[in-house]
Amino acid sequence: MQTVKVDLGRRSYDIAIGGGLLAEAGERIAALRPGARVVIVTDDNLARVHLSALQASLDKSGVAHSTVTVAPGEASKSMTVLSQVISGLLQARLERNDLVVALGGGVIGDLAGFAAAVTRRGVDFVQIPTSLLAQVDSSVGGKTGVNAAEGKNLIGAFHQPVLVIADTDLLRTLPPREFRAGYAEVVKYGLIDRPEFFEWLEENREEIFAFGPALEQAIATSCTAKAQVVSADETESGARALLNLGHTFGHALEAATGYDGTRLVHGEAVAIGTTLAHEFSNRMNLCDADTVSRVRRHLVAAGLPVDTGEVPGGLPPADRLLDYIGQDKKVKRGRLTFILTKGLGRSYIADDVPPAEVLAFLSGKLQKR
Amino acid sequence: MQTVKVDLGRRSYDIAIGGGLLAEAGERIAALRPGARVVIVTDDNLARVHLSALQASLDKSGVAHSTVTVAPGEASKSMTVLSQVISGLLQARLERNDLVVALGGGVIGDLAGFAAAVTRRGVDFVQIPTSLLAQVDSSVGGKTGVNAAEGKNLIGAFHQPVLVIADTDLLRTLPPREFRAGYAEVVKYGLIDRPEFFEWLEENREEIFAFGPALEQAIATSCTAKAQVVSADETESGARALLNLGHTFGHALEAATGYDGTRLVHGEAVAIGTTLAHEFSNRMNLCDADTVSRVRRHLVAAGLPVDTGEVPGGLPPADRLLDYIGQDKKVKRGRLTFILTKGLGRSYIADDVPPAEVLAFLSGKLQKR
Repeated sequence: MQTVKVDLGRRSYDIAIGGGLLAEAGERIAALRPGARVVIVTDDNLARVHLSALQASLDKSGVAHSTVTVAPGEASKSMTVLSQVISGLLQARLERNDLVVALGGGVIGDLAGFAAAVTRRGVDFVQIPTSLLAQVDSSVGGKTGVNAAEGKNLIGAFHQPVLVIADTDLLRTLPPREFRAGYAEVVKYGLIDRPEFFEWLEENREEIFAFGPALEQAIATSCTAKAQVVSADETESGARALLNLGHTFGHALEAATGYDGTRLVHGEAVAIGTTLAHEFSNRMNLCDADTVSRVRRHLVAAGLPVDTGEVPGGLPPADRLLDYIGQDKKVKRGRLTFILTKGLGRSYIADDVPPAEVLAFLSGKLQKR
Repeated sequence: MQTVKVDLGRRSYDIAIGGGLLAEAGERIAALRPGARVVIVTDDNLARVHLSALQASLDKSGVAHSTVTVAPGEASKSMTVLSQVISGLLQARLERNDLVVALGGGVIGDLAGFAAAVTRRGVDFVQIPTSLLAQVDSSVGGKTGVNAAEGKNLIGAFHQPVLVIADTDLLRTLPPREFRAGYAEVVKYGLIDRPEFFEWLEENREEIFAFGPALEQAIATSCTAKAQVVSADETESGARALLNLGHTFGHALEAATGYDGTRLVHGEAVAIGTTLAHEFSNRMNLCDADTVSRVRRHLVAAGLPVDTGEVPGGLPPADRLLDYIGQDKKVKRGRLTFILTKGLGRSYIADDVPPAEVLAFLSGKLQKR
């Protein structure tokens, strides 16, 4: 078991990472907030697989609890479902010192965390991430929210959890596609500024996918990497934007496919987006072609898509994709902000990217299909 | 013109109070945030009365602007209308450095402020309060939010404005009932801990209601009083609860009348709630009967209701009212928290009020009708 501390002053919290931790959840929650009641937010699928173990753990430690469930899938990250979750919390008579427990992947973490942020103007929450993506990404940093018709994650709040319990055993029940998608975010941390971690991943990818000890280490390193960035810039006014490597292109792809997880899940969009960011950097004479190939090779070996042509059902024209990028919240005063790279693990924030270059690049990519 | 500074560290802001300030709004906004675009949020009624003056002022200072309007009334403080406002902000392509301007009373301030708090995880907002209630209460302290089916203001965020422009001339177009209702909150500041301000109000009430110079002074003193409490306790973990004098009873009355402003507006509920808080304090042998009479007399002279019997359409039984109090967010661990008083301007937080005493008190009040 490893513990990663996210250092945010009064809002600091621990991420416990390891096997078998779900069974200890009640004990940890009771120790953290004696006497608090808990409302678990989860989805119907996860409720079938993991809820009884969590409830048993809470019962064992004498923590009173109730549960709100939502439908599985990205469609639940909506204002409508948010209202339903809040209503569930209020009907459970959640008080200010009680806790919301988000048991699920990124969707549940974002939704339940946002519901906690705005119910009674803010109650605390605990995350028990059940996907690799959630364990390495959404459980660190306090970004919560839902999607708008105008774009992904455009409605939300910064609300830090008070504890994250990342039980690596839960990942064994993940569909392989979801596991691979989460791995795209793990790779991202290497490509931002940890080339040695990327090299380690090249060597340990098979052990990670076989649920060996390298998995816990990969998660811990990813959480440590993200925690460092977030500590330095909690509300994304500066360096935190580095975490968006692959995400500006990726979000546009997700928007263009209507957030339809049967076509493209977030991590797959990030894998393609990361590749595009490297290719675009190469086009701009920033990054050498060998690095681009090496990144593509690693993502392909992990079973991830790397080309726009791999998106089932096709994509809209380049100018429409650029519109989606323009609506992305990382736009400032009309210039485009991208995370570009000068080589392996040498990413930086480019806040003056000409939209015309992006359009030409995307047009070329789409024509190749 | 007076300026009250709300001291909240990095989130400090000024409240400008005086006549004719709406015409200066563009200049002040341009100075505060050069180059920012503005989306005005207002309601259909206020748009007819004040919008063109605000737009002219913004045009004069070269501030680009667009407008989102909602239906007037408390019903707009809902998750549904919140979604519409957020959608309007996103469609106007509001960016992180732009500003939302809330032009309206408490409903618009709460709604637009909350929309600003959660759009793109937080954009800044300016308040131009158009009601007395909004100028003395909701413009100070950063509480934003909407109502839930389960109770008033149960969904929201703490989000401080970056500037408040309180133009006292706007109050001349208020319906007299709304002006009186706002006055209930002015009186409240005297009754919390400023007996000398209450005495000053007794002497100056007529000048205030005649829009004399005492009005600006009353607003400035109220804002100063609230700012002091808020500075000491921004997120209502302690002393800020004093501002709820009259509000625990008041919110129950509003909930019991279905937030129907034709029956009871917020300030009227506060006037009755304040009277009940004093009467209940007297029943608990905390406050002398002369103080109760004096408070009643002043509120009655201002044309405000003070008895539950004055609520048109009647009220549910006492136990149902207590249920509404129990759902109020100021409940902690099953005990009831009320703001009670030991005399004129000597209010305090009583966090151990027995529900049975409240039930007996309310039963007695309701039977008297």
